[in-house]
Amino acid sequence: MYRLEQAEGGITLADGFFADGINIGLKESGENDLGYIHSDTLCDVASVFTKNKFSAACIKHFKQKGDFKTNFVLVNSKNANALTGKEGIDDIEEILSNLPKDMINPVMSSTGVIGVRLPKEKIITGLKKFDFYKKNSTECAKAIMTTDSTHKEIAYKVTLEDGSSFKIGGIAKGAGMIDPAMATMLCFITTDADIPKEDMEEILKETVEVTFNAISVDGDTSTNDTVLLLSNRKSKAYDKHAFIEALYKIMLYLAKEIVRDGEGANKLVSFSITGAKSDAQAKKAAKALSNSLLVKTAVFGEDPNWGRIASTIGSCGIEADEEKLSISFDDVLVYDKGNILFDEENEAKAAEVMKKKEFSIKCDLGIGDGTFVAYSCDLSYEYIKINADYRT
Amino acid sequence: MYRLEQAEGGITLADGFFADGINIGLKESGENDLGYIHSDTLCDVASVFTKNKFSAACIKHFKQKGDFKTNFVLVNSKNANALTGKEGIDDIEEILSNLPKDMINPVMSSTGVIGVRLPKEKIITGLKKFDFYKKNSTECAKAIMTTDSTHKEIAYKVTLEDGSSFKIGGIAKGAGMIDPAMATMLCFITTDADIPKEDMEEILKETVEVTFNAISVDGDTSTNDTVLLLSNRKSKAYDKHAFIEALYKIMLYLAKEIVRDGEGANKLVSFSITGAKSDAQAKKAAKALSNSLLVKTAVFGEDPNWGRIASTIGSCGIEADEEKLSISFDDVLVYDKGNILFDEENEAKAAEVMKKKEFSIKCDLGIGDGTFVAYSCDLSYEYIKINADYRT
Repeated sequence: MYRLEQAEGGITLADGFFADGINIGLKESGENDLGYIHSDTLCDVASVFTKNKFSAACIKHFKQKGDFKTNFVLVNSKNANALTGKEGIDDIEEILSNLPKDMINPVMSSTGVIGVRLPKEKIITGLKKFDFYKKNSTECAKAIMTTDSTHKEIAYKVTLEDGSSFKIGGIAKGAGMIDPAMATMLCFITTDADIPKEDMEEILKETVEVTFNAISVDGDTSTNDTVLLLSNRKSKAYDKHAFIEALYKIMLYLAKEIVRDGEGANKLVSFSITGAKSDAQAKKAAKALSNSLLVKTAVFGEDPNWGRIASTIGSCGIEADEEKLSISFDDVLVYDKGNILFDEENEAKAAEVMKKKEFSIKCDLGIGDGTFVAYSCDLSYEYIKINADYRT
Repeated sequence: MYRLEQAEGGITLADGFFADGINIGLKESGENDLGYIHSDTLCDVASVFTKNKFSAACIKHFKQKGDFKTNFVLVNSKNANALTGKEGIDDIEEILSNLPKDMINPVMSSTGVIGVRLPKEKIITGLKKFDFYKKNSTECAKAIMTTDSTHKEIAYKVTLEDGSSFKIGGIAKGAGMIDPAMATMLCFITTDADIPKEDMEEILKETVEVTFNAISVDGDTSTNDTVLLLSNRKSKAYDKHAFIEALYKIMLYLAKEIVRDGEGANKLVSFSITGAKSDAQAKKAAKALSNSLLVKTAVFGEDPNWGRIASTIGSCGIEADEEKLSISFDDVLVYDKGNILFDEENEAKAAEVMKKKEFSIKCDLGIGDGTFVAYSCDLSYEYIKINADYRT
């Protein structure tokens, strides 16, 4: 047995981790735009990156290193350093060469506008302002925000049966361009758990699948998506089940926070598919619903338009049969295996469900055992406003 | 050689075709909601339907007939007769049994809200008001409108080298839920060309691919998409090339009209992909662009955000290389094989292009010979307004 307790401190809760964020003039508002994560000993690293063919320079720079240990990650917002060619990678190397010599194999992670070279001089000047032994997780979380309205941060202390314990914390950013492979989101997790490298890789990949890869704001996939897990193994404590549970809780929380903070979003909807032919088919249906403009605008309008839900399932390319399909809004069943249960009373009940800030749209396909839950938000006027002039 | 002349008359231009539309109280506004297409002799029929698994009752009813000739199509709006089970098909049969006995193998085509039984009595009463020998193509085009702001109709007279001629005309509806397989769009084409049945099937399918299957308003695919081609072969004239050209012109015009009339749309954008590894990969990229919320909101905001265009190409799963990619807005090149040509002057020029009502976003992948053009519109506040409370 083990015990999980939520705790303050974000990515600096784990022993030996430091972080901070400052403004160096990239954001005219004066809000944080440059941050770091630093460990006083070397860390193992596990990573999951965007599948976008035009991955940003920071991702290419990271991948060039092959298998490596590091104790330093530099982060910035306002500029994605993507589509910037070889020069983009050279810029990173020049910037990182200005760090103190005890930063080993430093890497960088960027988010912001695509296709503009990094403001190198500003960043190099900015680096000199840092004290690299701060425990300011929240300031670092703020430094990676773009259209996010709030920073996203959480941490857990895990106590094992023998009384030993380890800590794990995470920060994330993301508010749009979210899907289907963790788009424009950054997430950094730090832990002092004594976790073997192979467990890190395996557990991170599996957890990304059911958390960050299960969310959608607008169906777009960015050039910069990054999830990094850093472990300095300082605690000497580890339990695989406990670690999986803690990491899942952290990443699901951060993923849901991203959806809740989706550009212009007012509601968090889970699309829960059961009875599909396979988990893969369930995922396809859940993702199709979570990306459908018609479904998302109906959610915004609080309109229990179950026909659009059925239509989206019918068109997403999975096995489906209208005589076996059921659709509910939370527990209000509106379509049951070919029977339309949408009288005035039931419609009013379903409309009540949709007025909530959080609810589920549940579809049982009645065919097999496949299940998946995807998370998404409504599509509002505000989304368009934000994205019609993002660069300005 | 042959000559194409655009002509008035829509689907009643061809010899022996009649059509009309009236209001029977389905639309409270008093606008047309029931219409017919009638030929005074039997027609060969070619059809392309939605790939949605939950195809509407009218499509199931049609398909049950197998290979057949008909001289009558009944159309209605406000109710899709989809997800209505066996009863939905029974309703159609009962309605059509009330037609005069000289309507042979009549079929029906519906569009509107999903999951509500047809108002059978109203329709049967409505049928009695029709004179089945009217040449009111426009009234019929209006009877299939849902959120469309205007009816869509066009016709051509084709004169062959020997002086013989045939006629062909079409009507369509559709303004949202358009993609990727002709979603919520209906299109009816009538011709008196002496076209062999096998040509009808082949030419219709191929033309749908590059017209209705190349447009997108919101990436959703409906339960009711239908394209019907009816030929009564009255003219005894036919030339395959001329027919292909005329049908392509008609269907491309109607498809573009649908995009132009996209819910809340202000602009018609063509996404022209060249240099892809294959036509299939070009299509994938063009469709991804035409469905991207971020691209569509940038179009609405008249923001030449080429980074989003590149990012969408990079994430759509085709072969791509940022050192080979070029991006232009009409003829303003902003990214050229790894070089960012986005200085103040060029950005201003690109922004000028985006102010136009119609323009092209051109991407050359620099890899192979694959090409495809997709058509889409911007995503505006108005789209959300229309779709947030469609049913009310």
